[in-house]
Amino acid sequence: MVKVGLIGIGFMGRGHLDNYIRLEAEGFPVKLVAICDIDKDKFENKFLPGNINVGNKKYDFSKYNLYTDIDEMLENEDLDYVDITLPTYLHAEAAIKALNKGMHVLCEKPMALTVDECKAMIEAAEKNNRKLMIAQCLRFWPEYEYLKECVETNRFGKVLAGYFFRGGGTPKWSYQNWLLQKDKSGGAILDQHIHDVDMINWLFGTPKAVSTIAKNVIPGSGYDIVSTRYIYEDGKVITAEDDWVLNGEYGFSMLYRVNFEKGNVVYEKGTLKVNPNDGKSFTPDLPKENGYYREIKYFINALINDTPIDVASPYSTMETIRIAQAEIESADNGGKFVEL
Amino acid sequence: MVKVGLIGIGFMGRGHLDNYIRLEAEGFPVKLVAICDIDKDKFENKFLPGNINVGNKKYDFSKYNLYTDIDEMLENEDLDYVDITLPTYLHAEAAIKALNKGMHVLCEKPMALTVDECKAMIEAAEKNNRKLMIAQCLRFWPEYEYLKECVETNRFGKVLAGYFFRGGGTPKWSYQNWLLQKDKSGGAILDQHIHDVDMINWLFGTPKAVSTIAKNVIPGSGYDIVSTRYIYEDGKVITAEDDWVLNGEYGFSMLYRVNFEKGNVVYEKGTLKVNPNDGKSFTPDLPKENGYYREIKYFINALINDTPIDVASPYSTMETIRIAQAEIESADNGGKFVEL
Repeated sequence: MVKVGLIGIGFMGRGHLDNYIRLEAEGFPVKLVAICDIDKDKFENKFLPGNINVGNKKYDFSKYNLYTDIDEMLENEDLDYVDITLPTYLHAEAAIKALNKGMHVLCEKPMALTVDECKAMIEAAEKNNRKLMIAQCLRFWPEYEYLKECVETNRFGKVLAGYFFRGGGTPKWSYQNWLLQKDKSGGAILDQHIHDVDMINWLFGTPKAVSTIAKNVIPGSGYDIVSTRYIYEDGKVITAEDDWVLNGEYGFSMLYRVNFEKGNVVYEKGTLKVNPNDGKSFTPDLPKENGYYREIKYFINALINDTPIDVASPYSTMETIRIAQAEIESADNGGKFVEL
Repeated sequence: MVKVGLIGIGFMGRGHLDNYIRLEAEGFPVKLVAICDIDKDKFENKFLPGNINVGNKKYDFSKYNLYTDIDEMLENEDLDYVDITLPTYLHAEAAIKALNKGMHVLCEKPMALTVDECKAMIEAAEKNNRKLMIAQCLRFWPEYEYLKECVETNRFGKVLAGYFFRGGGTPKWSYQNWLLQKDKSGGAILDQHIHDVDMINWLFGTPKAVSTIAKNVIPGSGYDIVSTRYIYEDGKVITAEDDWVLNGEYGFSMLYRVNFEKGNVVYEKGTLKVNPNDGKSFTPDLPKENGYYREIKYFINALINDTPIDVASPYSTMETIRIAQAEIESADNGGKFVEL
């Protein structure tokens, strides 16, 4: 039985909590033992916004050992790994502490705010011979896995072009509004757009250069709208955009349109459509589970079987941060091409 | 009664022909008198591809004076205007001939392949005191008119960002394949992407600079995939992309997503959705007619009432060509920012 401590039960933390509850119910060999959150009101099911109850969902927190202090939890609990769903600026410190205590670490995206922090996390993992994985959920998302497979197998030949977009309303639910503070979240580039940066890195590797135009809208939040072009030697035309000030009833979009030599693959509004140049369109039969559930299961299986974290190695997710930082540098300089 | 000669009945020309038939049936004071096409098989309803009959639609060409030579038509016919739906590289010459004969000119987009050709067209119009309009149909497309109105009236405040896309299968139906010859059509940038270039020019004016990444796929066709970023002083993030090698059953997309300070407007899959930041989404009640029908009607009304061609002045559509040429220069230089 793999014993887990969950650190942080904000919006993403509760998503992980739901998956642990589900995995335990399904008989998967994992047990959530302890939960830590600085805001003890959460243990009374009082969640943001406004620290009032939202919806009908209530958790039975009496089943877990509860902490408001990370050090205390790491000291008292005998855990196989911790799952870190803290605000980004706290990732590195918490991960390194846990690794130094001999625990494995699953940590929410983005890995950290800087490449130096990422390096320190990897060093701690290697020094302690522990596994470290960043929960870049799109790498476990069936429709993106399908795209990866198309790229890897050349099923439709080489990639000619790709457009990736994520966008929706401003996230206003975070603890002390950390998501909208550039120094805590890195803004939309590091928090939301990072999914597509990571996907492009995973699919195509590090680009030769990036050029980013971005715009700040919310005071203090960094960039809220971003458009990046990724330059590759073979001339494929790759763009990713993000906008987290699409408010009102816009909803949320995550989409891609990738054109290959012999077909194109379009994912939008939750539907994947594959259009071979010389045949009928089809929607592939894919796993029904989402990336959050599947990434946690993948990590636990890697611990149980002691297999490497190939799908989202810490080096690869660190490279994603390096690319995102180059995007910010480019945006700070009016779209200048920044080499990588 | 406004008398018209239609020059060219390829794909777009037949679209115009349909509208003249409709306008006459509706009692609009226009009469299509003469049609000219170099390929006389078309007058027997033999259309490309392959010069065989396509579909069930047959025109009664016996109602029109038919020509295979433009000069002959211009010499013999007493026309108020000619409607030019020729391949792009023939626009300037035909337009100037007609203007010099004292006829007004409605000409398909793009205006011409070069700014010099556009200038010559405008000079001929001014010298002869005739009207010249380029059929940039999106300026007459209800969903784009709505967007223009939002920009002009600041209904939702200032524009923060915009994404414009057009794309679909490769146009393989053109006479002697002129559309896929760079020197005749200007490739996807001048033929298809030009719609969004023109829209961005119309909405926001000339950008300070453009940066374009583009890719050739079909030998000899110029650029088939294009991604352009338009730089404005106020920092709005504007991107337009086009791809005419989205084959198979991809279909055809034309879409925009424009985010304003107080709301966003999204047009995709034929549906316009307006999302005010502080209210319910809605789909505005717009004219049901498409831009092709409406632009022809607009032009004829301008002739009848002798009113200026404000919506698509030849200077404005020439500026669109200048911007598109800057995009090609940028693409030729790996995305270099080209100032305008």
